Amino acid sequence: MKAPVGNALIGQSGGPTHVINQSLVGVVEAARSSGVIRNVYGALHGIKGVLEEQLIDLGAESEATLEAVAMTPGAALRSVRKKPTREECEKALAVFKRYDVRYVFYIGGNDSAETAHILSEIAGQSSYDLRLFHVPKTIDNDLRVTDHCPGYGSAARYVACSFLGDNVDVRSLPGVKLNVVMGRNAGWLTAASALARQFTDDGPHLIYVPETNFSVDGFVADVERVQRELGRCIVAISEGVHDAAGKLIAESKEVDSHGNLQLSGSGALGDQLSQVLKARLGAKLRVRADTFGYAQRSYFGAASAVDAMEAREIGRVAVRLATQSDAPTGSISILRESNAPYRVRYERTELKLVAHDTRPMESTLLRGTNDVSAAFLEYARPLVGELPRAARLSDVPVKKS
Amino acid sequence: MKAPVGNALIGQSGGPTHVINQSLVGVVEAARSSGVIRNVYGALHGIKGVLEEQLIDLGAESEATLEAVAMTPGAALRSVRKKPTREECEKALAVFKRYDVRYVFYIGGNDSAETAHILSEIAGQSSYDLRLFHVPKTIDNDLRVTDHCPGYGSAARYVACSFLGDNVDVRSLPGVKLNVVMGRNAGWLTAASALARQFTDDGPHLIYVPETNFSVDGFVADVERVQRELGRCIVAISEGVHDAAGKLIAESKEVDSHGNLQLSGSGALGDQLSQVLKARLGAKLRVRADTFGYAQRSYFGAASAVDAMEAREIGRVAVRLATQSDAPTGSISILRESNAPYRVRYERTELKLVAHDTRPMESTLLRGTNDVSAAFLEYARPLVGELPRAARLSDVPVKKS
Repeated sequence: MKAPVGNALIGQSGGPTHVINQSLVGVVEAARSSGVIRNVYGALHGIKGVLEEQLIDLGAESEATLEAVAMTPGAALRSVRKKPTREECEKALAVFKRYDVRYVFYIGGNDSAETAHILSEIAGQSSYDLRLFHVPKTIDNDLRVTDHCPGYGSAARYVACSFLGDNVDVRSLPGVKLNVVMGRNAGWLTAASALARQFTDDGPHLIYVPETNFSVDGFVADVERVQRELGRCIVAISEGVHDAAGKLIAESKEVDSHGNLQLSGSGALGDQLSQVLKARLGAKLRVRADTFGYAQRSYFGAASAVDAMEAREIGRVAVRLATQSDAPTGSISILRESNAPYRVRYERTELKLVAHDTRPMESTLLRGTNDVSAAFLEYARPLVGELPRAARLSDVPVKKS
Repeated sequence: MKAPVGNALIGQSGGPTHVINQSLVGVVEAARSSGVIRNVYGALHGIKGVLEEQLIDLGAESEATLEAVAMTPGAALRSVRKKPTREECEKALAVFKRYDVRYVFYIGGNDSAETAHILSEIAGQSSYDLRLFHVPKTIDNDLRVTDHCPGYGSAARYVACSFLGDNVDVRSLPGVKLNVVMGRNAGWLTAASALARQFTDDGPHLIYVPETNFSVDGFVADVERVQRELGRCIVAISEGVHDAAGKLIAESKEVDSHGNLQLSGSGALGDQLSQVLKARLGAKLRVRADTFGYAQRSYFGAASAVDAMEAREIGRVAVRLATQSDAPTGSISILRESNAPYRVRYERTELKLVAHDTRPMESTLLRGTNDVSAAFLEYARPLVGELPRAARLSDVPVKKS
C-alpha cells in the first residue's frame, strides 16, 4: 500500500500534560521531512476545530517557535473533551477530504483513541485513503498495551517533588498530612509519591489507590498506627478511591460527555477525610489536607527529561508508521527493553486495543492495601529521572548540663 | 560593650520556607568564624527544644552536610508554633545560662520576633549578657520594616510557575479557574501570581487580596465580565479575603496558640466560591478551584536564587551584628538600594518593631479591588528571578476551502 501524498492534520485532546507539545512538535518535524506530506495543519481544540474548520497552518512556524512550544506545558493547539457522534465523524471525514488531509494524528488518552477508532472505521467504509494515528498522552498512565504513557513521567515528577517537600515540612511541624492525587481509574500517579522516600522514616507512609477497595475504618487504623510509631503520618490518596461496593469516597455530580465524573478541582475528599480523622483520633491532632491540583499536569518546570524525549519521539514514530508502513491506523506503544540502562522501543498497536478502557496497576506493583511494591519503584524511577536529594542534620545531642 | 565569649544557640520557628535552612547555615558559618562563639547548638523545635533541653551540636556537621541542608526546604532543626509564657521564658533563660549560651538566633516570622522580644526583655532584667537576634523568614512577606522577607521570593516563584502552568492549561480547556493562595493577613503571595502574565490575555485576570474588602457580588460580576471578554478567567484569591465587616469569606474553627485561624490545608474557600459561580453564572460553566497547598513553602525545586542567597546572607549578618555591634538584640531588615541592577543592604531593626503586627501591601502596590499595580511587579520581579517563558503557536489560519 503506497503512502498517499497529501496534507496532515494534528489535534490535541483531553487533559494536557507537561510534554504534550513535544509530541506535537515531533509530528510536525517528521511530517516536514516525510516526503509525502505537503502541508501540516493543526485543528484548534481537537475534533471541535475539525468540525468548525478552525485549522491553522503549522508550516508557518519557525523551528525556534516549535522548540519553545515543545518546552511549554498545556496543549498549544488547545484541547477539547468531546466524544463526536457518528454524524459528526462523517462530517469530520468530509472536512478531511475537502482539505486533502491524508494523515491525521490525534494526540490524547483513551477517550481520544476511541474518537480516532470511530473516525477510522468510518473512513474505512469510504474509499478515501486516510492514515489515522493516535499519539498517546496521559498523566494518568492508564492506557492499555503500552509500558507507560508520555505525560506520566513529568506528572509523577511533580508529585514526587511535592512529597519530598512534604517530608521535610511535616517533619518540621509534625502531624497528619493527606495529599489527594489525580487519577480517577488508576493509582499510577498516586503511587509515584513513593519515589519521595529517601530516609527510612520518610513518607508517604500510606498510599491508597483505586485498584484496592478503600475502607474508612482501615484508613483510620493505619493512620493511627503510623502516627503512634513516628509522630507524623503522610498519606497519598487517589481521588478515585472507592469502597468495596465501588462507590467513590468523594462523590461529585458533574459528568463530562465521556461519562467521567469531575473529581479534580475540588477539595472535598481531603477535607472529608480530615474531619473523619479529627473525629476519630481527637481534635488536637494536627491534620492537614492538600488536594493536588492542575499543577500536576501543568506546573511550569516539572517536566522529566526522559518523558519529554519520549513524547517527542513518539510523535516522530507515528509519522514514520503512517507514511512508511502498510497499516492505515494505529496507536503507538512504548515497550521497555531494559531498565539498567533504561531503554525502550516503540511499536504500532491496534486502535481498538487502546480505546475506551483503561489499565489499572497490576497487583505485583502493589503491596497490601496501603503501599506499592519494590517492582513499582523500579518501574517508575527511570520515567521520573533524578530527584533532588533532601539532607538532614546529624542530630548529635549536646550533653545535658 | 565587648562581645561575650560563649556558646550560640539557633532555633527555627513557625512555618518553614524553601530557604529557611540557608539562614541556619549562614548563622553556623559566621558563628564558626566569629572568634567569640565556642560551640554552636541547635534547639530542636525552637523554643520547645530549649525548654526540654533537646539541643544538638551543630559543630559536628561537615561543610558538605551543611551545604546540602541549605538546599533542602523545611526546617532542618524542626519547627514549632508556640508562644512561650513568661514563666517559660524565664526557664529558657535558665537553660541559656546553664549551657553558657551567650548568643541566640531565632529564625522565624513576626510571632517568633515576639517570642525573641519577650525573651530579650527578661534577659535584660537579669545581669546575664545575652545577645538575642531574630533572623526573619516568612513566605507571607508580611514582616514590618524590611523591604521583603527571606522565603517570600521562592514561594512567589512557586506561585508564579503554577499560574504559568494554569495559563496554558486553561487556554487549552477554557473555563473559570480559581486558585486560592496562602496569606492570612496580607496579599503579597497572592499578588505574585501576576508575575505569570507573559501574553496580553494571560491570567491571572483577577487578583483578590485581604488588603481590600471582598464582595461576593463584585467577584461574580468581575468573573462574568472576563469570561465574556476572553472565554476564560483565571483568578488568584488569598485565603484571607474578608467582607467589609472583616469577616473571613472562609471561616474555620481551628486556632493556634498565637490566635491564628487555620485557613490552609482545607479546600473550603475555593469550593464555596465555585458553587457560587455555578449558581449565579450557570451550571454549564466549567469552574475549577485549586487550593494551593503546602507546596507553596516546600515544593522541592522552587527556590529562587536571589532568595536563597539573601536568606544565607541574613544569617551571617545576624552573627556579625551580635558579635561586632553594641546592640544586644535586634532583627535584620533588608533595604533595597536599587532595582536595576537589583541591590540590597542589611540593617539592624529593633525587635519590637517587627514583633507581633504584620505589614499589609501598600495601596500603591494595588490597582482597584482586583489587581496589582506596575509598582508591585517591579518590586516582586527581582525576588523571584527569571521565570520560564511560555510559547504559543502563531495560529496562521488555513484558508477555508
